[in-house]
Amino acid sequence: MASSTTSPIGNASGSPRPDGVAGRVSTTSGKGTGTLADRYRSVRELTETLAAPLSPEDQTVQSMPDVSPTKWHRAHVSWFFETFILRESLSGYRAFHPVYEYLFNSYYEGVGDRYPRPRRGVVSRPGVSEVTAYRAHVDEAMDMFLERRLEPDQYYLVDLGLHHEQQHQELVLMDIKHVLSCNPIQPAYTTLQAVEPSVGPSSELVEHAGGMVDVGHDGQGFAFDNESPRHGEFLEPFALEARPVTCAEWMAFIDDAGYRRPELWLSDGWAAVKTENWEAPEYWSWVDDRWWSFTLGGPKHVDPAEPVCHVSYYEADAYARWAGARLPTEAEWEAAAAFAPRSLPRSNFLDTRVLHPRPVGAQSSMFGDVWQWTSSSYSPYPGFRPAEGAVGEYNGKFMVNQYVLRGGCCVTPEGHVRPTYRNFFPPAARWAFSGLRLAHDL
Amino acid sequence: MASSTTSPIGNASGSPRPDGVAGRVSTTSGKGTGTLADRYRSVRELTETLAAPLSPEDQTVQSMPDVSPTKWHRAHVSWFFETFILRESLSGYRAFHPVYEYLFNSYYEGVGDRYPRPRRGVVSRPGVSEVTAYRAHVDEAMDMFLERRLEPDQYYLVDLGLHHEQQHQELVLMDIKHVLSCNPIQPAYTTLQAVEPSVGPSSELVEHAGGMVDVGHDGQGFAFDNESPRHGEFLEPFALEARPVTCAEWMAFIDDAGYRRPELWLSDGWAAVKTENWEAPEYWSWVDDRWWSFTLGGPKHVDPAEPVCHVSYYEADAYARWAGARLPTEAEWEAAAAFAPRSLPRSNFLDTRVLHPRPVGAQSSMFGDVWQWTSSSYSPYPGFRPAEGAVGEYNGKFMVNQYVLRGGCCVTPEGHVRPTYRNFFPPAARWAFSGLRLAHDL
Amino acid sequence: MASSTTSPIGNASGSPRPDGVAGRVSTTSGKGTGTLADRYRSVRELTETLAAPLSPEDQTVQSMPDVSPTKWHRAHVSWFFETFILRESLSGYRAFHPVYEYLFNSYYEGVGDRYPRPRRGVVSRPGVSEVTAYRAHVDEAMDMFLERRLEPDQYYLVDLGLHHEQQHQELVLMDIKHVLSCNPIQPAYTTLQAVEPSVGPSSELVEHAGGMVDVGHDGQGFAFDNESPRHGEFLEPFALEARPVTCAEWMAFIDDAGYRRPELWLSDGWAAVKTENWEAPEYWSWVDDRWWSFTLGGPKHVDPAEPVCHVSYYEADAYARWAGARLPTEAEWEAAAAFAPRSLPRSNFLDTRVLHPRPVGAQSSMFGDVWQWTSSSYSPYPGFRPAEGAVGEYNGKFMVNQYVLRGGCCVTPEGHVRPTYRNFFPPAARWAFSGLRLAHDL
Amino acid sequence: MASSTTSPIGNASGSPRPDGVAGRVSTTSGKGTGTLADRYRSVRELTETLAAPLSPEDQTVQSMPDVSPTKWHRAHVSWFFETFILRESLSGYRAFHPVYEYLFNSYYEGVGDRYPRPRRGVVSRPGVSEVTAYRAHVDEAMDMFLERRLEPDQYYLVDLGLHHEQQHQELVLMDIKHVLSCNPIQPAYTTLQAVEPSVGPSSELVEHAGGMVDVGHDGQGFAFDNESPRHGEFLEPFALEARPVTCAEWMAFIDDAGYRRPELWLSDGWAAVKTENWEAPEYWSWVDDRWWSFTLGGPKHVDPAEPVCHVSYYEADAYARWAGARLPTEAEWEAAAAFAPRSLPRSNFLDTRVLHPRPVGAQSSMFGDVWQWTSSSYSPYPGFRPAEGAVGEYNGKFMVNQYVLRGGCCVTPEGHVRPTYRNFFPPAARWAFSGLRLAHDL
Repeated sequence: MASSTTSPIGNASGSPRPDGVAGRVSTTSGKGTGTLADRYRSVRELTETLAAPLSPEDQTVQSMPDVSPTKWHRAHVSWFFETFILRESLSGYRAFHPVYEYLFNSYYEGVGDRYPRPRRGVVSRPGVSEVTAYRAHVDEAMDMFLERRLEPDQYYLVDLGLHHEQQHQELVLMDIKHVLSCNPIQPAYTTLQAVEPSVGPSSELVEHAGGMVDVGHDGQGFAFDNESPRHGEFLEPFALEARPVTCAEWMAFIDDAGYRRPELWLSDGWAAVKTENWEAPEYWSWVDDRWWSFTLGGPKHVDPAEPVCHVSYYEADAYARWAGARLPTEAEWEAAAAFAPRSLPRSNFLDTRVLHPRPVGAQSSMFGDVWQWTSSSYSPYPGFRPAEGAVGEYNGKFMVNQYVLRGGCCVTPEGHVRPTYRNFFPPAARWAFSGLRLAHDL
Repeated sequence: MASSTTSPIGNASGSPRPDGVAGRVSTTSGKGTGTLADRYRSVRELTETLAAPLSPEDQTVQSMPDVSPTKWHRAHVSWFFETFILRESLSGYRAFHPVYEYLFNSYYEGVGDRYPRPRRGVVSRPGVSEVTAYRAHVDEAMDMFLERRLEPDQYYLVDLGLHHEQQHQELVLMDIKHVLSCNPIQPAYTTLQAVEPSVGPSSELVEHAGGMVDVGHDGQGFAFDNESPRHGEFLEPFALEARPVTCAEWMAFIDDAGYRRPELWLSDGWAAVKTENWEAPEYWSWVDDRWWSFTLGGPKHVDPAEPVCHVSYYEADAYARWAGARLPTEAEWEAAAAFAPRSLPRSNFLDTRVLHPRPVGAQSSMFGDVWQWTSSSYSPYPGFRPAEGAVGEYNGKFMVNQYVLRGGCCVTPEGHVRPTYRNFFPPAARWAFSGLRLAHDL
Repeated sequence: MASSTTSPIGNASGSPRPDGVAGRVSTTSGKGTGTLADRYRSVRELTETLAAPLSPEDQTVQSMPDVSPTKWHRAHVSWFFETFILRESLSGYRAFHPVYEYLFNSYYEGVGDRYPRPRRGVVSRPGVSEVTAYRAHVDEAMDMFLERRLEPDQYYLVDLGLHHEQQHQELVLMDIKHVLSCNPIQPAYTTLQAVEPSVGPSSELVEHAGGMVDVGHDGQGFAFDNESPRHGEFLEPFALEARPVTCAEWMAFIDDAGYRRPELWLSDGWAAVKTENWEAPEYWSWVDDRWWSFTLGGPKHVDPAEPVCHVSYYEADAYARWAGARLPTEAEWEAAAAFAPRSLPRSNFLDTRVLHPRPVGAQSSMFGDVWQWTSSSYSPYPGFRPAEGAVGEYNGKFMVNQYVLRGGCCVTPEGHVRPTYRNFFPPAARWAFSGLRLAHDL
Repeated sequence: MASSTTSPIGNASGSPRPDGVAGRVSTTSGKGTGTLADRYRSVRELTETLAAPLSPEDQTVQSMPDVSPTKWHRAHVSWFFETFILRESLSGYRAFHPVYEYLFNSYYEGVGDRYPRPRRGVVSRPGVSEVTAYRAHVDEAMDMFLERRLEPDQYYLVDLGLHHEQQHQELVLMDIKHVLSCNPIQPAYTTLQAVEPSVGPSSELVEHAGGMVDVGHDGQGFAFDNESPRHGEFLEPFALEARPVTCAEWMAFIDDAGYRRPELWLSDGWAAVKTENWEAPEYWSWVDDRWWSFTLGGPKHVDPAEPVCHVSYYEADAYARWAGARLPTEAEWEAAAAFAPRSLPRSNFLDTRVLHPRPVGAQSSMFGDVWQWTSSSYSPYPGFRPAEGAVGEYNGKFMVNQYVLRGGCCVTPEGHVRPTYRNFFPPAARWAFSGLRLAHDL
């Protein structure tokens, strides 16, 4: 098997190309201060930092088909650079292992066959240390590549690869939370910071006059293809609550038989309630006369002031109906985010290392803590065109049977989300850090 | 068991209410010439006419969970009148059978428990003749009820019941087509009229300038709750093809490996292709070097000039991508329908008794022949409020995981559809008479 | 489609063969008094008598994959004669319909493809009246065939066909009981004779000294291939209870938490208890503080003195363990049956038309009322050879994953069972009329 | 969490009991030279030796529900000693971890709830090093326990625990072979010894006169409860082939369309062929015009002279039918083994470290290389009584839906099998080292 001490470039005489500068163009998105190579190193390091507390055994497990093993994530994001950049554009690049192209392809039909997703957890090798060597191999080659003057589409692909890896950083944490939750020992990923339990204030409404609004990315800085083109939509007047729904409110929903009243639910949602025996959000359990939640720090009491998290679209929709409200459309959410006051509390993203939603104030940021379900089915914007080539499979082919979430959450890398950022999950999914913010007609 | 010779009214002294006139208010929708009682009789008779060619055995079978037995349809639409009108509003009404409330409830949680849908085909009794007696019992009571002066909400409920029965008339034909198709003997529902095979002309584009359009029902005549409220939407300029996609065009898609190229498909669609082994539209088979289609008249050669039918949303979407086009949104479709020329060929609805899509001309009606998939997820219009009570479950609770179809088809009762009418099916469904009409960006 | 008025013989000049006598050899099995042609007519008529109370709708339904529609049974047993006798041995025979060979083949791989068993309930056509015509067509041809002097193997095949039809007579009743039980209306197949409720006496033991015994059919009269060859087996001394386990005893098992104590169950049995939510025999329900059972006469109170019926092998085994006993092996059962006193009460087979197990006396016949599970896996006797040709698939290929039952039941045609007769079902099956008789080591 | 440096005995004053000798009674089974404590250490060490080549990732994976992770096996066999000996009989014993009782219970209902078997692969913690600590903790306590004078039932339980661990040693290798086979990289567990490819001689028949034979264990040395009581059975004359069926013979079966001819198969077997797409034994693949087999040493060419391995009961039965032979009953096999000549080649068990079946000579041992399917359903011997208490669940409750295999295989620890040893698997299982030896009627 290939070893990490081998040079990733077969032709050892590869010149250093000292005149290459394109790789150093400063970026306008994210933290934005360094070169692309700096950002590359920074993003890659964060992945390893997140995996560091996890043993080889932890990194191997797949607890359900939607979850991937940590070591798979670490390898797959490297495969992305290897496949779309190094194989294509770095002359003489030697792939680390001939089978990895097959093993770490997630879903790109254009690249060839791939190993079945639900079976990722039965692949014990490559192990953690070999994945580490694979990452080093790719990093070494990428260092050489980033020395060069990049073409715009090469720059875009590296940028895409970094945003792709950030998405998987969030998935690493989402997924390991599910893995550990399946263990009767209830182990912790890490020790969470203690946060004072608190009582959340009542919510306020922020009104919006409606009318024509612009939706979608304006082209400044990085965005995924699904955020374009920017286009006009017409909105009726509406109001959005100033903060997400809290656990205290959700407990009231439970106490009011929310999970036992079919009239509150979409038909498919009610079927899920009965099939899956939902009685509370994912990870909640009722023990010793109170609600507990399994967190990345292990089991803890549910804090009533926290935004509710790990609810499906079906639950969010039912809750909104119970509350006499509704979910916002993604256009409403984006329009509201564009007008949101700048003086809000700082968002709770991954960089705070809280790794859990924080109690909300009367007003809170539109961003962070919990992804917010919208009522919008994930579909193409008018005039949408996927990227050329296999990376065009990144977003477009998932535009069915999914609903859009906005805003990012406590395990989203800072700088990764934008007001126009469209996350999406099937309506029954609960293992993402997903909550909701209510909307009202005016 | 109750008999059809028993009066449906326990109290024989029920006065005839000769002054009742509300039931005779002429309606503004549908054929519109008769009283409500006339329309009631007409709709009810059509159901029986459609069932007449079917034996008791035919009427008993359920060939898949989505399909219901004919005799179930005939009973369920009667249950609707019994449950929402007679039990509620006809004093002294005696239900025909105590178990029917349970047995013929389709999905109304507000009415109580119901018999499981996928098991409708294991209920041999009541048999066909007893269902006929049940219908007569309900009709007799409805005759008495319709003699009265109706309150507006009573009038609405009768009207709703009639449109509900019309929907089930279409389902009777869709469903029995599926039932008969499962039989290796390939029996015919009826003898279809011979239609001259023909070659369809190439399609033309009808352009639309976009901008603000009104979408939804304007309140004149009957409409379902899901068509309201009427509201503004902003559209980019677009063009719609002047006719649906034909079988000739679909064969070109097949010949170009349309069912074998994952890059044409949504991810879920491609999974369906592989799981379901789709290679052509539902009911098509390749025998003796040509395409055959199973129809309500039994197997026949595919006519290239006919609109393609029995394709899923996934197939419609893949075809559009292959053709360099897209599906229209439902707002685009509705805007186009509002401007459609009046001089088009007469639509092919159920009343033509063709019971199959007809070959298309260069321009064809926006209506009839085949339901047309739109790219719009079925979701509530801004400000949507479901009807009060259990009939509020009619539409709203299905607004997830489904896509909207427009225009009606060759087995839709005439007068049942409108430009604002929203039909919907899950994206993998193929047993409806579903086709497509392409849209283009301008 | 072929009509029943058409002669089944294409060549009208077929000679009547007046010298044919082999078909009139009197049989030594069954009631034994008539010619083979007489027996043919008698068996065929009984099938129609059993189907007579069932409507076309009743005869169409398949309530689970193991159950077949009545009209399928009626056609399949005719297919057996058509396939193995008429097509093979009656020159000029014209098959009734070209697709029936495919449609009514149950499981004979040697005959060709067949329609999938779990989909028999979706075939509405041929309907009941056409199946009647099919039967008449086959009967007419068989009448001609039975006029002839038959070769021994032809005689055997007709005899086999008659025993085959008798097996399906039992299945018609077993299966329709399941069909009707799925109907919330709980309809009756017929009105059962009233039987006085009674209290069963305690059971007595009948001891057997063990040693070498002969097992299997001795060649006198008809037997299936699986009953041969007759061979020696060595038995330890044992005792068999003089009557089957009663409902009263079963209620004591239930009351003693029999369905909730895993230590009483085989591992696979306990899994079935939990998966299938078994709490009592099939068709039992606890309503208004007492046990009811669904019968061919509709719901009735459980009579404590009746043999318990509709229990699986798993339940029979668990009950025996609870009772400190065990199930007998089939060799023990057969040895005991060979020594059983001749003065026992007459057996309750189909001809009594009780159609339900009768209360037991202190001693009861080894035969009738309920099939009795044995602990013997269904496997070939030493030296077993299946019959030649496709009819060799009759028994041998099912000799795995099934357990043997002995003795016949209240819906078994009289004369159909023998002491050596081996019935068999998978260990989780409950829709047969299956009970148990306990054995003890000595 | 408990640490391995903590004494397993809470009460430090536990006296050493220098007069204890029962633990040193020499055993009459197995290699038989050491004390029980010596054997304990020897068996426990072998488990660790077998796990040593496996990484933490390897030891974590469960590739199908029947397979368990290596670290689960290592912990479960320790749990057996902890649960049935240390908790019961070692005063002051402190369990290593409170959740392990739940986590490492395999199927003992009498011990309490247990973690679901199909989910063993999602438990990343305890990891490999913690399992090692658990084993050390148990070993330390067992050392103290084995210093004592043991009661006979205590001696039996330790002996049972050691044979239990030997069974799991075989499972460790069977299971990891399956795990590694699922990996597209096709990794090896270890480097196999090179064995010369060879051509196997034709087989010879060994005749047996039949008559009364004794079957079951005679009470000398250890045996499982399912091998008792010893009892008489009557056999017809038969012959057994002198060696197992070889790969060369199996290739002839494949070439003769063995996997495509339903007449060769049991009905359930044929269903498995079609459902599972069987075309050859498990682990075989046809690449570059020859058969390859995945082994514990990675992929290698199939050696025609080796016994065929990894075939199901269904395949063994079909092969035997194709070959005009049959599988032996377990009584036949045991009778033949009792008479087998003593001068046969030494058996290929785990201690040879070949880890793969070896080419066979014209005569070969009845033992080793491959487990041999018999035609006998796994059922209790006459008079069988399971052991008292929860260990009584060891064997008896699996006596349904399984078939007996005899003789041990190349990964069975030497000294673990006996002529009376009954292994068993469901008829579709293929991941055991299972082959066959043909029998013939005389």
